Amino acid sequence: MSLIIDVHGHYTTAPKALEDWRNAQIAGIADPSKMPKVSDLKISDDELRESIVNNQLAKMKERGSDITLFSPRASFMAHHIGDFQVSSTWSAICNELCHRVSTLFPEHFVPVAMLPQSPGVDPRTCIPELEKCVKEYGAVGINLNPDPSGGHWKEPPLTDKWWYPIYEKMVEYDLPAMIHVSTSCNACFHTTGAHYINADTTAVMQLIQGDLFKDFPTLKFLIPHGGGAAPYHWGRYRGLAQELKKPQLTEHLLNNVYFDTCVYHQPGIDLLNTVIPVKNVLFASEMIGAVRGIDPTTGHYYDDTKRYIEACTRLSDQDRHQIYEGNARRVFSRLDARLNAKH
Amino acid sequence: MSLIIDVHGHYTTAPKALEDWRNAQIAGIADPSKMPKVSDLKISDDELRESIVNNQLAKMKERGSDITLFSPRASFMAHHIGDFQVSSTWSAICNELCHRVSTLFPEHFVPVAMLPQSPGVDPRTCIPELEKCVKEYGAVGINLNPDPSGGHWKEPPLTDKWWYPIYEKMVEYDLPAMIHVSTSCNACFHTTGAHYINADTTAVMQLIQGDLFKDFPTLKFLIPHGGGAAPYHWGRYRGLAQELKKPQLTEHLLNNVYFDTCVYHQPGIDLLNTVIPVKNVLFASEMIGAVRGIDPTTGHYYDDTKRYIEACTRLSDQDRHQIYEGNARRVFSRLDARLNAKH
Repeated sequence: MSLIIDVHGHYTTAPKALEDWRNAQIAGIADPSKMPKVSDLKISDDELRESIVNNQLAKMKERGSDITLFSPRASFMAHHIGDFQVSSTWSAICNELCHRVSTLFPEHFVPVAMLPQSPGVDPRTCIPELEKCVKEYGAVGINLNPDPSGGHWKEPPLTDKWWYPIYEKMVEYDLPAMIHVSTSCNACFHTTGAHYINADTTAVMQLIQGDLFKDFPTLKFLIPHGGGAAPYHWGRYRGLAQELKKPQLTEHLLNNVYFDTCVYHQPGIDLLNTVIPVKNVLFASEMIGAVRGIDPTTGHYYDDTKRYIEACTRLSDQDRHQIYEGNARRVFSRLDARLNAKH
Repeated sequence: MSLIIDVHGHYTTAPKALEDWRNAQIAGIADPSKMPKVSDLKISDDELRESIVNNQLAKMKERGSDITLFSPRASFMAHHIGDFQVSSTWSAICNELCHRVSTLFPEHFVPVAMLPQSPGVDPRTCIPELEKCVKEYGAVGINLNPDPSGGHWKEPPLTDKWWYPIYEKMVEYDLPAMIHVSTSCNACFHTTGAHYINADTTAVMQLIQGDLFKDFPTLKFLIPHGGGAAPYHWGRYRGLAQELKKPQLTEHLLNNVYFDTCVYHQPGIDLLNTVIPVKNVLFASEMIGAVRGIDPTTGHYYDDTKRYIEACTRLSDQDRHQIYEGNARRVFSRLDARLNAKH
């Protein structure tokens, strides 16, 4: 029996006090007299428990998954709001809440950290928060936003040395990064329908254009939402790599880049597993996330991705074990260490 | 026997004099004394013939396609360069060249017009060029750039009334628009590897969010490159439409939105035809375009998309007839009229 490890979950169901505090913080940007103190936010353990037991944990039990890598709500990271100080305070609060959830449910939730990114601010400013999350909270990965501007794409590509201070820390701690944007404040891009998926596609192409993994051979990126458009257009990407005189993608990307299974229908999951080697696919659902409804064509939740993995006839039981557990433990080595320490 | 109609071809092989003229025009933006006259560009019919016979037409014959809907090179539209006057002159030149090609090879090339879009400029300024191309050149469709800024996405979404003057003309002439961006001048977005695919995905999501086809029930959009990420994530898009209280996508989009087959490997084409109804899929290759190489896994050109359609076991001969000819004649009614007039 495999452990079913969902590598992509956000705390989308935090008590309303969190959102209220954030709104007060945003009001405080314009009018510093309104800026709340961190200590103004009061959420009890019981409130945290309730927000999880009735939501993520209930669905994990229903669907049969065991562990969720749990990070702050992606759309609420909103790195475009305020300055570094605003992001820093907000990240600290959100990361602490995920840490508390993982302490309350140590068998089921393992923290992944958001970073206090801010548009135009040197990413090395994120390192203290990153280190705190790893050392004090036991975070096993980070979420890295390639576009802290929220849909205006003003930072350099992920292959630029601008980002290297983060990568050096990732390598030092063997900490994978999920490349995950936040809310779009560009009216052209719907947050979860365009900006998220475009960011995934954009990240893959940036990595094809560059040679980042020559500088960081052990760096690991998880591209969420099944890799955006990349697997569907894998022929295009193989062909573009060829035009750019890069090595084959198996060598150029697939020792360092992984894709999750947040693809919400059977044909998409089938394609993902046709095109991308099993070793590069990690089980995930992003439950409770962008798509919360029931698919009328199946009668099941769109984001109940385990059903698609189960029904994918290309996969052997051994493949499924890799996707559910083996790959997650290999890629998130700090998760593996944590699990080994327990059992 | 079907006619094999490729609905997505650009004049990527125009004689070098065209690019030289464009470079002179760009120099003339900074220094008006260097601005070339339209009459400075001299390309003979023989040069046009040669650029086609040895390139697109040779490959069409090799691969067995009959007709290409032929528009100016997408990456060279570069609407972000200069002002409306610059775009207007450039569009007129490029559209005239495609018209001349279609006159030289009337059995094989049918013109589709680019528009003289310019960032922030009212799209109704494009109408004179559009009308000229339809009335004088016999254009059967247009290419509409949803992001004339070139990767900064500063225009309103396609569902905004900003674009309605174009849509009114499209309806008047029963003229479909392929939604196609141009060169990215945002370093984050590789032009053909990220910006093109993201734009396709973005357009689909904009159309899901809006209710454009209530206002224009006969408007027709072709989403190129197999619809970006949309078919791969069709479950996500069905689910998001549901969250937004929109009708099912079959009703909300698929009476007005079509996808081409510019997907450069078999699994992608198989997915497209699993998810999208046959009536919404139009054959295309974008040859000679972004991906010009030979796929080492097949020994054939990546963009020889007819091979994938042939090998797609989901499709019947009748389905293939629709994809190769029937749908193109139904969607591009002016093409159908042109073909009927000839035969």
